[in-house]
Amino acid sequence: MAHGAGGKATAALVEGVLLPAFASEALDELADAGTVDGSLAMTTDSFVVKPLRFPGGSIGELAVNGTVNDLAVVGARPLALSLSLILEEGLEADVLRAEVAAIAGAAEAADAKIVTGDTKVVERGHADGMYVCTTGVGRRDPRATLSPAALRPGDRVLVSGPIGAHGMAIMLARGEFELGATIESDTRSLWPAVDAMLDAAGPALRCLRDATRGGVASALNELARASGVAMLVREAAVPVDPMVAGATEILGLDPMHVANEGVLVAVVDPAGADAALQALRAAPGGERAAEIGEVRTEPGGMVLVETGFGGRRVMDQLVGDPLPRIC
Amino acid sequence: MAHGAGGKATAALVEGVLLPAFASEALDELADAGTVDGSLAMTTDSFVVKPLRFPGGSIGELAVNGTVNDLAVVGARPLALSLSLILEEGLEADVLRAEVAAIAGAAEAADAKIVTGDTKVVERGHADGMYVCTTGVGRRDPRATLSPAALRPGDRVLVSGPIGAHGMAIMLARGEFELGATIESDTRSLWPAVDAMLDAAGPALRCLRDATRGGVASALNELARASGVAMLVREAAVPVDPMVAGATEILGLDPMHVANEGVLVAVVDPAGADAALQALRAAPGGERAAEIGEVRTEPGGMVLVETGFGGRRVMDQLVGDPLPRIC
Repeated sequence: MAHGAGGKATAALVEGVLLPAFASEALDELADAGTVDGSLAMTTDSFVVKPLRFPGGSIGELAVNGTVNDLAVVGARPLALSLSLILEEGLEADVLRAEVAAIAGAAEAADAKIVTGDTKVVERGHADGMYVCTTGVGRRDPRATLSPAALRPGDRVLVSGPIGAHGMAIMLARGEFELGATIESDTRSLWPAVDAMLDAAGPALRCLRDATRGGVASALNELARASGVAMLVREAAVPVDPMVAGATEILGLDPMHVANEGVLVAVVDPAGADAALQALRAAPGGERAAEIGEVRTEPGGMVLVETGFGGRRVMDQLVGDPLPRIC
Repeated sequence: MAHGAGGKATAALVEGVLLPAFASEALDELADAGTVDGSLAMTTDSFVVKPLRFPGGSIGELAVNGTVNDLAVVGARPLALSLSLILEEGLEADVLRAEVAAIAGAAEAADAKIVTGDTKVVERGHADGMYVCTTGVGRRDPRATLSPAALRPGDRVLVSGPIGAHGMAIMLARGEFELGATIESDTRSLWPAVDAMLDAAGPALRCLRDATRGGVASALNELARASGVAMLVREAAVPVDPMVAGATEILGLDPMHVANEGVLVAVVDPAGADAALQALRAAPGGERAAEIGEVRTEPGGMVLVETGFGGRRVMDQLVGDPLPRIC
């Protein structure tokens, strides 16, 4: 299960088995999306979340927003989506209709057309109702000059909103523990936030990452490795809703490792950082965007967290899978 | 299960639930691929075949060739593929490596780059080892002017090779009956065959279809409905390998309803039919390509078969699913 969790085991699978076989420049960048030709980006994701519906969203919205967001963070405006459904025999028609409506609504909100699709059916007991695979094609915005290798010491690190909501919403929706309240998933299209930042700070944006599986911690570790730099994150500056903080504490999790479905990490040249932050705050769902840290020189490839008491610890990628099947 | 079989129930699901929700010009054509912008085509497919490996191929080759072929039959040269894997917890590393190698080999043979990917892991007992979702983007060839609504009475109907091999290969590989011999799947990239036909007959090609789930019968019925024409197929002219003919007879199946993974149907203006047929025969795997029938006026929207004895019967789309999970 850990190989699907977005942490170290996933990285080993991707870098050890998949990349060598498919030798392709587009893959080697390890970005959230690849390149079809110069101006088109392409990304794909399968969604296997349990349960299918949860407070704040459903598998259909995740499938659209997750794919749209993988395009957005490489600076590509979503154009077209494909939709492939693997349905479990006996799935209720109303459940299918609800997800089809959720997919259509999310695609319309994200201004992306569904242009092609496929359905397969597998026997009862397989596929947990439905799995959804969405692939997106987007046009790279000429204002964007993003690369995971572009980080420089002194760059500022931003997040677009409070972290950890999606993962904890799923855990609560599964009834795995009681909390006397509801946490809503943060699933949303991040293109409006990216669009606003490109307008405000264009070439000052070094790199963006969608902080999904493995959370903000995995996104930062991937960037630190790709650029050979260090990151310092000030824990007290990271926005976390009190309910999410409480839930992660009960479960012994760090919210930095919990998946988001509508939060991005932005690394920005200091000259553009304030403008980018203001743009994020003015975008939908970005009211609580914050600067959470900065890029340093040493120790290269690592992420350090400065706690509220002034101590520092290494914040590694997720190991194992405390939150399986969250997207 | 019938909703996934490519026949009438699939058509009801697609046309009754999916199309109305996603109102999109690209989808309304009901072609094998949609349009991203003027010159780019996009298609997606999930593969859930059991077993994962079978004589003549494996799920990895199917996943690449199936997607490449959906592009080829809309006249689009494959450019880029995405690959999304849903893996079952506990899947043996060697099985994964073998499929990754099969995918890489098929992509190279089809001259299509894998530019982006995703992996998810689900618990033991789900996903039957692995499901594979591939999405392809291709560039529409300017020589191609294909449309399912373009058929005219008098047009000739061609198939690119012997039919029914893939579906029967899977049935035999499952050990569901004994036949004292092996049938190999016909999985292959059809782009070389399409490329050759475009060269030889360009504008005379009315429409092409990849005869996968639901077989040649479903492909012809879809075209007859889309153009409001009739089709007459001469049963004796349809190439079927003796082993496949024997196996379908034992199971009470019509080979016209059995899935292919490397056979296309071409409808061609009579002026270009001979050139197209010669081009097919010179393409890899096309040695036994044949003209099997023609387009008529009446009865509109239907496919008729002329038997060896001169009788005629209606050849409908597949109803139910005698061959589940064949791709």
